[in-house]
Amino acid sequence: MRTQVGIIGAGPAGLLLSHLLHLRGISSVVLEKRSRDYVERRVRAGVLEQGTVDTLTEAGVGERMRREGLPHHGIELRYGGAGHRIPFEKLVPGRSITVYGQQEVVKDLIAARLAAGGDVRFEVEDVAVHGLTSAPYLTFGDERLDCEVIAGCDGFHGVSRPSIPEGVLSVFEREYPFAWLGILAKVAPSSEELIYTRTERGFALHSMRSPKVSRFYLQVPADAREEDWPDERIWAELKARLESVPGFTLATGEIMEKGVTPMRAFVVEPMQYGRLYLAGDAAHIVPPTGAKGLNLAVADVRVLTEALAAYFEDGSTALLDGYSEACLKRVWRAQHFSWWMTTLLHTFEDDDPYARRLQLSYLDYVTSSEAAATTLAENYVGLP
Amino acid sequence: MRTQVGIIGAGPAGLLLSHLLHLRGISSVVLEKRSRDYVERRVRAGVLEQGTVDTLTEAGVGERMRREGLPHHGIELRYGGAGHRIPFEKLVPGRSITVYGQQEVVKDLIAARLAAGGDVRFEVEDVAVHGLTSAPYLTFGDERLDCEVIAGCDGFHGVSRPSIPEGVLSVFEREYPFAWLGILAKVAPSSEELIYTRTERGFALHSMRSPKVSRFYLQVPADAREEDWPDERIWAELKARLESVPGFTLATGEIMEKGVTPMRAFVVEPMQYGRLYLAGDAAHIVPPTGAKGLNLAVADVRVLTEALAAYFEDGSTALLDGYSEACLKRVWRAQHFSWWMTTLLHTFEDDDPYARRLQLSYLDYVTSSEAAATTLAENYVGLP
Repeated sequence: MRTQVGIIGAGPAGLLLSHLLHLRGISSVVLEKRSRDYVERRVRAGVLEQGTVDTLTEAGVGERMRREGLPHHGIELRYGGAGHRIPFEKLVPGRSITVYGQQEVVKDLIAARLAAGGDVRFEVEDVAVHGLTSAPYLTFGDERLDCEVIAGCDGFHGVSRPSIPEGVLSVFEREYPFAWLGILAKVAPSSEELIYTRTERGFALHSMRSPKVSRFYLQVPADAREEDWPDERIWAELKARLESVPGFTLATGEIMEKGVTPMRAFVVEPMQYGRLYLAGDAAHIVPPTGAKGLNLAVADVRVLTEALAAYFEDGSTALLDGYSEACLKRVWRAQHFSWWMTTLLHTFEDDDPYARRLQLSYLDYVTSSEAAATTLAENYVGLP
Repeated sequence: MRTQVGIIGAGPAGLLLSHLLHLRGISSVVLEKRSRDYVERRVRAGVLEQGTVDTLTEAGVGERMRREGLPHHGIELRYGGAGHRIPFEKLVPGRSITVYGQQEVVKDLIAARLAAGGDVRFEVEDVAVHGLTSAPYLTFGDERLDCEVIAGCDGFHGVSRPSIPEGVLSVFEREYPFAWLGILAKVAPSSEELIYTRTERGFALHSMRSPKVSRFYLQVPADAREEDWPDERIWAELKARLESVPGFTLATGEIMEKGVTPMRAFVVEPMQYGRLYLAGDAAHIVPPTGAKGLNLAVADVRVLTEALAAYFEDGSTALLDGYSEACLKRVWRAQHFSWWMTTLLHTFEDDDPYARRLQLSYLDYVTSSEAAATTLAENYVGLP
């Protein structure tokens, strides 16, 4: 079996790459070890930058997103007993975010790939990468897929990155001393916009997936387990943090999903080796505070598509050679912004009283200086 | 002996307070343990915010500052082999800084006080504070000065703050793991504007005091001693850091002054107790990176003058009662900005590769985003 681009992973990165390549007349096969049902239900990010929305729309997979996605023109920062809106429409006119679950993007992309006759294989076993510096090919089950280029879109725990020889990659990482407990609840959002809340009890985020489904996150200890958090405890803690503003009442409902996400940052440099190109979480992860993970994956895929198009059109390797460098500037901007949002809003047990005052002073500044608020807004909606 | 306001310390805070009170018809006596010659030669800060310049001008002590001070409309950030100008004239139109040494401000203030018949006593011994919650008075040598209010303007190591009973003040502090070695050199500045330089060897600052006198700072280990730094070593290190931009040559000259400044932050809350009001370094110090120390002292004195004027005019204590709260908002903004500039530009030995990349990404952002550059500029020239 032969294709031009062998893609490992049917998450948003792999599926979007496959679809964008198809639109440029380049063939690909997507190999995914999980089932279609699993990847379509996997709850992940839900905040799409303007550039991500534009890319999905231009790729022809934005129809349901435009219908069901919730455009937001601001977020609220809540601390010290008051809420402060960061108004995107004023600070970054014409740019906004769209709340639309990652699994919905995945569903739309799978549907589009299949409708176009794309080759997406689920539940393939033992995917392995070969010939990266000569004639690349993938093996899975009993099969072999020869290709000219391999795209590693298989996430942080995938096989792509570990297939690069020792010593090639520089690793940059950071573990935060806390995690996020995320829940999905059958209840209408208590606010129209996202609320990022800093309290002495820890961070909380009020988000949503639809007019009837809310999404919440709680800062919890790094070693927290789901079983430590029965539903009543979750609602009590969410109320204690989010109801820190007078007059705000949190509506509660049935909890449909519950999960603990470690807070960690990770980058490898370069994002390529021989004929293998890493995209999305396979090359970098961010703590979820800045809502950048999915958006970075889409940005990587945009760059990789252009580079592959140039390569397959006229054999030019300049863009492919520069792929990593082109991506890493954005990756580090997002790493920095995610660190910034994380440190601005979380409680760090090691923080001394001086550090806590600095944090509050920073929040006062971000919510009172137009320039400072704009730095938040322009990163949140996504820099060009 | 009796006066309305007993002022401890003849630094910029104490002298300016005495002069501003004089202009409002309020009497004061300034007690200083050092000699006039000492305080007039003590080399300290040299960057005046717009608001500081305005205050000195309105107080009638700005004549020489206007003649000899150097107005600056930008600073340079230098890192990664390139310089990037932060243009104040574009980012914060109409606001700038003035380079004019603190000891020059002190000379002007002493001259003004003496010309107006002010009572400034140098080399007084054993100043002590009494009766803070009843009838306040100061003792020094064999003398006693009764007053209605005491202003503690005697710096970080002065007697005012320690005279407040244990348990009254909350202390917030931070020690940085490095110091600044500062020199004053008889050489024309090699650049018209200040250059804040981040290199892998550490931070360096190119500054100036006049068209013929340059001021430089080097990040050095916290335990560095002047004797570790002979002149040749200083110039070699300054060149290694500042000449990191192609085409830039550092002019060298005779070193007239040399000193190591610890990098430390400190705040007490509240800044008052009974009839004692602390101003400037007596209540808070900042690392020098943001050039905020002198400017904060002037801002404190502005607030205290208004509060004392209200008190002596009609006995109103509302502004005096709110003195600390009114000052602390600005104090914490300056603390945060100083921390921000310090962490943005210094090398931290404990930083892992991830942290170093974040720092470079932040510098790239500050020098490429107008909003981010404006946050630097508006803090540097001084928020209203």
